[in-house]
Amino acid sequence: MLEELFLRGAIDAFLAEDLGTPGDLTSAAIFGPHEMARAEFVAQEAMIAAGLARVAAQVFVRVNPAISFTAVEDGRSVAAGETVLTLAGPVLDLLKAERVALNLAQRLAGIATLTHRFVEQVRPLPVAIVDTRKTTPGLRALEKYAVRVGGGRNHRFSLSDGVMIKDNHLAAAGSIARAVSMVRAAIPHTLRIEVEADTLVQVRECLDCGVDIILLDNMDCHTLRQAVEMGQGRALLEASGGIRLDNVRQVAETGVDLISIGALTHSAPSCDISMRLLG
Amino acid sequence: MLEELFLRGAIDAFLAEDLGTPGDLTSAAIFGPHEMARAEFVAQEAMIAAGLARVAAQVFVRVNPAISFTAVEDGRSVAAGETVLTLAGPVLDLLKAERVALNLAQRLAGIATLTHRFVEQVRPLPVAIVDTRKTTPGLRALEKYAVRVGGGRNHRFSLSDGVMIKDNHLAAAGSIARAVSMVRAAIPHTLRIEVEADTLVQVRECLDCGVDIILLDNMDCHTLRQAVEMGQGRALLEASGGIRLDNVRQVAETGVDLISIGALTHSAPSCDISMRLLG
Amino acid sequence: MLEELFLRGAIDAFLAEDLGTPGDLTSAAIFGPHEMARAEFVAQEAMIAAGLARVAAQVFVRVNPAISFTAVEDGRSVAAGETVLTLAGPVLDLLKAERVALNLAQRLAGIATLTHRFVEQVRPLPVAIVDTRKTTPGLRALEKYAVRVGGGRNHRFSLSDGVMIKDNHLAAAGSIARAVSMVRAAIPHTLRIEVEADTLVQVRECLDCGVDIILLDNMDCHTLRQAVEMGQGRALLEASGGIRLDNVRQVAETGVDLISIGALTHSAPSCDISMRLLG
Amino acid sequence: MLEELFLRGAIDAFLAEDLGTPGDLTSAAIFGPHEMARAEFVAQEAMIAAGLARVAAQVFVRVNPAISFTAVEDGRSVAAGETVLTLAGPVLDLLKAERVALNLAQRLAGIATLTHRFVEQVRPLPVAIVDTRKTTPGLRALEKYAVRVGGGRNHRFSLSDGVMIKDNHLAAAGSIARAVSMVRAAIPHTLRIEVEADTLVQVRECLDCGVDIILLDNMDCHTLRQAVEMGQGRALLEASGGIRLDNVRQVAETGVDLISIGALTHSAPSCDISMRLLG
Amino acid sequence: MLEELFLRGAIDAFLAEDLGTPGDLTSAAIFGPHEMARAEFVAQEAMIAAGLARVAAQVFVRVNPAISFTAVEDGRSVAAGETVLTLAGPVLDLLKAERVALNLAQRLAGIATLTHRFVEQVRPLPVAIVDTRKTTPGLRALEKYAVRVGGGRNHRFSLSDGVMIKDNHLAAAGSIARAVSMVRAAIPHTLRIEVEADTLVQVRECLDCGVDIILLDNMDCHTLRQAVEMGQGRALLEASGGIRLDNVRQVAETGVDLISIGALTHSAPSCDISMRLLG
Amino acid sequence: MLEELFLRGAIDAFLAEDLGTPGDLTSAAIFGPHEMARAEFVAQEAMIAAGLARVAAQVFVRVNPAISFTAVEDGRSVAAGETVLTLAGPVLDLLKAERVALNLAQRLAGIATLTHRFVEQVRPLPVAIVDTRKTTPGLRALEKYAVRVGGGRNHRFSLSDGVMIKDNHLAAAGSIARAVSMVRAAIPHTLRIEVEADTLVQVRECLDCGVDIILLDNMDCHTLRQAVEMGQGRALLEASGGIRLDNVRQVAETGVDLISIGALTHSAPSCDISMRLLG
Repeated sequence: MLEELFLRGAIDAFLAEDLGTPGDLTSAAIFGPHEMARAEFVAQEAMIAAGLARVAAQVFVRVNPAISFTAVEDGRSVAAGETVLTLAGPVLDLLKAERVALNLAQRLAGIATLTHRFVEQVRPLPVAIVDTRKTTPGLRALEKYAVRVGGGRNHRFSLSDGVMIKDNHLAAAGSIARAVSMVRAAIPHTLRIEVEADTLVQVRECLDCGVDIILLDNMDCHTLRQAVEMGQGRALLEASGGIRLDNVRQVAETGVDLISIGALTHSAPSCDISMRLLG
Repeated sequence: MLEELFLRGAIDAFLAEDLGTPGDLTSAAIFGPHEMARAEFVAQEAMIAAGLARVAAQVFVRVNPAISFTAVEDGRSVAAGETVLTLAGPVLDLLKAERVALNLAQRLAGIATLTHRFVEQVRPLPVAIVDTRKTTPGLRALEKYAVRVGGGRNHRFSLSDGVMIKDNHLAAAGSIARAVSMVRAAIPHTLRIEVEADTLVQVRECLDCGVDIILLDNMDCHTLRQAVEMGQGRALLEASGGIRLDNVRQVAETGVDLISIGALTHSAPSCDISMRLLG
Repeated sequence: MLEELFLRGAIDAFLAEDLGTPGDLTSAAIFGPHEMARAEFVAQEAMIAAGLARVAAQVFVRVNPAISFTAVEDGRSVAAGETVLTLAGPVLDLLKAERVALNLAQRLAGIATLTHRFVEQVRPLPVAIVDTRKTTPGLRALEKYAVRVGGGRNHRFSLSDGVMIKDNHLAAAGSIARAVSMVRAAIPHTLRIEVEADTLVQVRECLDCGVDIILLDNMDCHTLRQAVEMGQGRALLEASGGIRLDNVRQVAETGVDLISIGALTHSAPSCDISMRLLG
Repeated sequence: MLEELFLRGAIDAFLAEDLGTPGDLTSAAIFGPHEMARAEFVAQEAMIAAGLARVAAQVFVRVNPAISFTAVEDGRSVAAGETVLTLAGPVLDLLKAERVALNLAQRLAGIATLTHRFVEQVRPLPVAIVDTRKTTPGLRALEKYAVRVGGGRNHRFSLSDGVMIKDNHLAAAGSIARAVSMVRAAIPHTLRIEVEADTLVQVRECLDCGVDIILLDNMDCHTLRQAVEMGQGRALLEASGGIRLDNVRQVAETGVDLISIGALTHSAPSCDISMRLLG
Repeated sequence: MLEELFLRGAIDAFLAEDLGTPGDLTSAAIFGPHEMARAEFVAQEAMIAAGLARVAAQVFVRVNPAISFTAVEDGRSVAAGETVLTLAGPVLDLLKAERVALNLAQRLAGIATLTHRFVEQVRPLPVAIVDTRKTTPGLRALEKYAVRVGGGRNHRFSLSDGVMIKDNHLAAAGSIARAVSMVRAAIPHTLRIEVEADTLVQVRECLDCGVDIILLDNMDCHTLRQAVEMGQGRALLEASGGIRLDNVRQVAETGVDLISIGALTHSAPSCDISMRLLG
Repeated sequence: MLEELFLRGAIDAFLAEDLGTPGDLTSAAIFGPHEMARAEFVAQEAMIAAGLARVAAQVFVRVNPAISFTAVEDGRSVAAGETVLTLAGPVLDLLKAERVALNLAQRLAGIATLTHRFVEQVRPLPVAIVDTRKTTPGLRALEKYAVRVGGGRNHRFSLSDGVMIKDNHLAAAGSIARAVSMVRAAIPHTLRIEVEADTLVQVRECLDCGVDIILLDNMDCHTLRQAVEMGQGRALLEASGGIRLDNVRQVAETGVDLISIGALTHSAPSCDISMRLLG
């Protein structure tokens, strides 16, 4: 569910950004076009590998389709010092792709690793850790892929493939029931409807008009638990707002179905990976 | 030095990513095309503002050139609760641009704020905090702009506008002197040459062949101080590797000219900003 | 729910296709750049207007933002001889946009008009006429917009915003239950799951594992009626295959919720509209 | 004369439209990346095959260059039930390209088949059936290719590669002679000049000033015959307007050289083709 | 007949090439965003002005639509020292567009001026000076426009809007007659057919099979004169090959209709124009 | 240092410009898709070969990756009549790429050859012949590559990778010292600073504030010599303005380090190369 077809154009743009015109001046002055080498991506800290074969290696392949590689599988837990990607090809091409590939691999590993830590916290409760639209502009498909690699699940990818009725919509429509019916009349029947609820009264209204998913926004655990009781499985319940590694377990124990966390994508620190050139 | 000309295409791509086809289904079902509103971006925590008028507001303008706005100046220190951007225009257009604009503003503020904290640590020493090429693919120009807003300086933007001779280049060339002379013969005369040095012996060799900038890679403060003494101003000295908020002051006190820090761009957590829709 | 933001690029490509290099040779040889004129789009047959202000007129605006226009509202029933769009601006620009704008307006009116005829056939039964992915490559968003204008509803826009489990998927998964559970585990929770059923046995299996939508593929009306009885409202039922203007009423009377028709977009003949240049 | 070079970009755009982000959710949940299959396009009705190897198969190849195929030759008359394209490759890639490839193949076959029916009607008279610029925006080169496949000929591809002087141009220039001389002075000498004539008086004027091609617009057969007599081969005569399958023979018998028909491209119903996946 | 619609994209690409990322570093360090200025393009030598309002000024407008300008009309003969374009707007934007606008204006004036010199040489003979496809890749439409500005005429713009049967085609077809009939059967009827002839025997064959235009390739003036006599106006005759300012008059006097000269576009030296910034 | 990665897109655009829609009509009517041939590029005059394998041949490869070739090495001095590029592949594809490939090869050879002539004039003096930003819009990277092939060196590629403080900047800043310090504070430390000096007084000021490179603008040889004496190697000295083949030696003998010449790229006449198709 990471559509490689669309990666090609993005990778070209990333390479153009990093190479500039006329390209890698330093290396072109030193190496000849036919010198071959091997290279390794080495994890400098423990992490969940993400986007090695499908993303980082593709940067090298895009620079030169003749570069060969073997990579650690996405989702594997990797120790500091482990080699996660091995490459072979012309030195000039390996160096050309290095920085872009590392920047991507480090960010994706960072997201997968943070997601994994959240997922571990709530194991084995029947709750999903899900992402949001708070992703890096231009990298949403990749970042949401890293969330899945880390064991999380994806929320909608865009404003087109999911409906979320928020306070502004409710205010304009006049009531939850009316907003839901306006939206239901307009959208493809293939989509569920989600409504953001700030209070238990709103949760009740959502349940009464057959909302599919209820976003429980910034509720404390006590209130979440009441919402769960109220819901009785008639709607998916998604907790959101202020969730951190140190309180996610408590939230999960309230019985909600999903916990959505913007920080998975907007604030995961990059993992440290470096490239080593071999003879 | 943020070239707005080139932002247009990027913003269009970011909007396409977030809107999808057929666009904001929820809002289109609720609001009419002529309903007007005002909106505010409110800082939810203290931060250095970055990219409000020049980036976030431009997302709204790109959606609809008739949207008007006033924004806090980039670089200003903002308190939690302060309004940093005020907008007025059609509700549908405000909602359409919201998420992309917030994602950008939050990330840029995050980078400016982190940079500012580093800059504060070394004040008033005559040393520059500089970024690296460890930026988010697709966002380099914006992220480097945020570094400047936070008081930092920029390193090269691409492999084309700066030369950095690293260990691989040295190994292939045989010596620093030979690597430098190969590079000098090939590049535009408008560029300086930087060499990565791991030891004081290498620093000495760099100085001997007239290198313009020496990257002192992962040296402890004692060694850095020796390099500074050795240099006597004949080359710019740039410390790099393992620099954190809690040790940057010590590094600065060694007398190096520049301290480059990848984390400024690859690991700055986003600042929290939210959009409030007003009547 | 027609995202005009994304029309701009498409219109430019359509104009390039029709103008070629060096452009409208004939008109450039005859008219000066400052000659002004008015023009009218006149319906040559009865039709449902579609895409006049939002699409056809935008072609003219894209050629020259100074062109002004007034248009009949989308969805209005128009008689032969009626003017549906009035334009004013430089003659050269009106002629430059003419063919592309007409080609679009004629096709969209064709789709809206055909959809409207189907919708009229089933009125006032509680059933929706919906489109499919059998659209013209490059024009899906516009064609699906025309379906809505004609009173129809939209099925999914792409393989990303809806799930449809077909016979190949079922064969590979081994059973409906297993296919549904594999899909449910992988997709965003914002999407419903639709399964294609060829027999009542399959309908039963779908109902048993909580499928949201069942596509009743090429069933006769008797079977459709049995499926409706079986369903009792627990899933949306969508009839599909072999539906024409002369049998759609019968299908609708079986009680299905939706009737999907590929011909709405792949075989609607264009409506006849012509442009008249005035003084 | 279908330039495949330019198809690549169009196919990518069509695939992006149909796949969306994150792609084919349903199939990705069911099939593994290494499962192989064969697939067949089967004609569900009699038709003239068009665009199989050069267009539809190229969609598959664009998704995965490793997909192999054999196809019926363009222009062949195919019976209902015949296999027109056989493919082999990874299931996921076959399903990814299916809808776009079918949508194209069905439309092109529709145009070739309709063109062929017109061509059959006028056989063996020395008259060409030609298309117009009333094509689907974005698909002109493909649709004009299908017209050739069906036995028709092409009119100009854009406003740049042919000159057509119409009533508006004549009114502005003052006379046919003056319009022709203005145009002749401005255009490349490689192009012929065509003038639209509504009356025999205009036909006479066209002949008098050496027009290369005369478009006889909406004339009845009697008038067409008079124009042919008047022309005596000094100009190509093109009949246009209101031509249908049931009157094209009569028009052809008047002796005109060309008959242009917009419906070939704007109103040809798609032919029915389906894809069958084999083990 | 210079389609401005398509200039926008090209100008953006030219600006990106000249500005790079992060843009005009020098000026951004010196000037504030609100400083206004006027600027003048001054001809440093006598020339035919070309592409000032329609091309060079558009580069400035693309950088900032608020820049105003007045320009000398294309085709005017300008003396050394004359101001040909006056601009007013923000200094930073004037400097940003300067180099690209000058590079274009200088090249186009160079082509128009050289064309004009050829045209003057043959005045008032009834012969046209025409260009070829030997243009700068990416600039064909602009360069052919400059040829027209200089008083020349255009040959075909691409391989699609003109037919030229050369020796290779003849060899493959077996004879001129057969080549012409193969081509006539395949191309739109809106195009004329041109054949390259190396000998008078070939000229005769061309005339015998009704070729529209004959390219007389590298013939001396005596042979050209014989070809003209042979032709008696039945085909357009185009002389080509080895034509210079010092022999073009003689060629023209042979009576050919057209003289095509590759050097107009591939070897015209740029005219010298400079930009002066005023207070 | 010619980044082939970025050539692909440019070549596609050049081919689209030359082919048009629907492509090479003439050849498609004559040759079948499977006819193979060989072809040769033959130098029609003496020249320095440039861009054969890396540019011209890539046009063919882009049209059809199966086309094979052997080419003369860039920089070799070639005699009239020599074959510089040999190609083998389908005739239709060889003809499709011919004109674009020739247009590029001729221009690049023209630049390399002119550069070479300048370089020969100054040999063996320790001075570099350098280019400017007066390149053809869209072809800068290629043209600067040809300069290197001819033995010249490159000046900055864009406004981003070099700093040039000109009279306007100086006027606004108030003094050279102030302009330099404003610029130094703003730019990456990887760039040198160049200042344009019109007088020896300005040269002195430049030296006093540590400018890296001084552009000696339009100075006569006497003044240049004084500047060299003044400089004593403390800054690179670049002579510019009015330099021709007949005075470059004198300029070089003044002792300047660099001589920059716009004519290298803006006024080099194309070299004559033609393609011969073989059996």
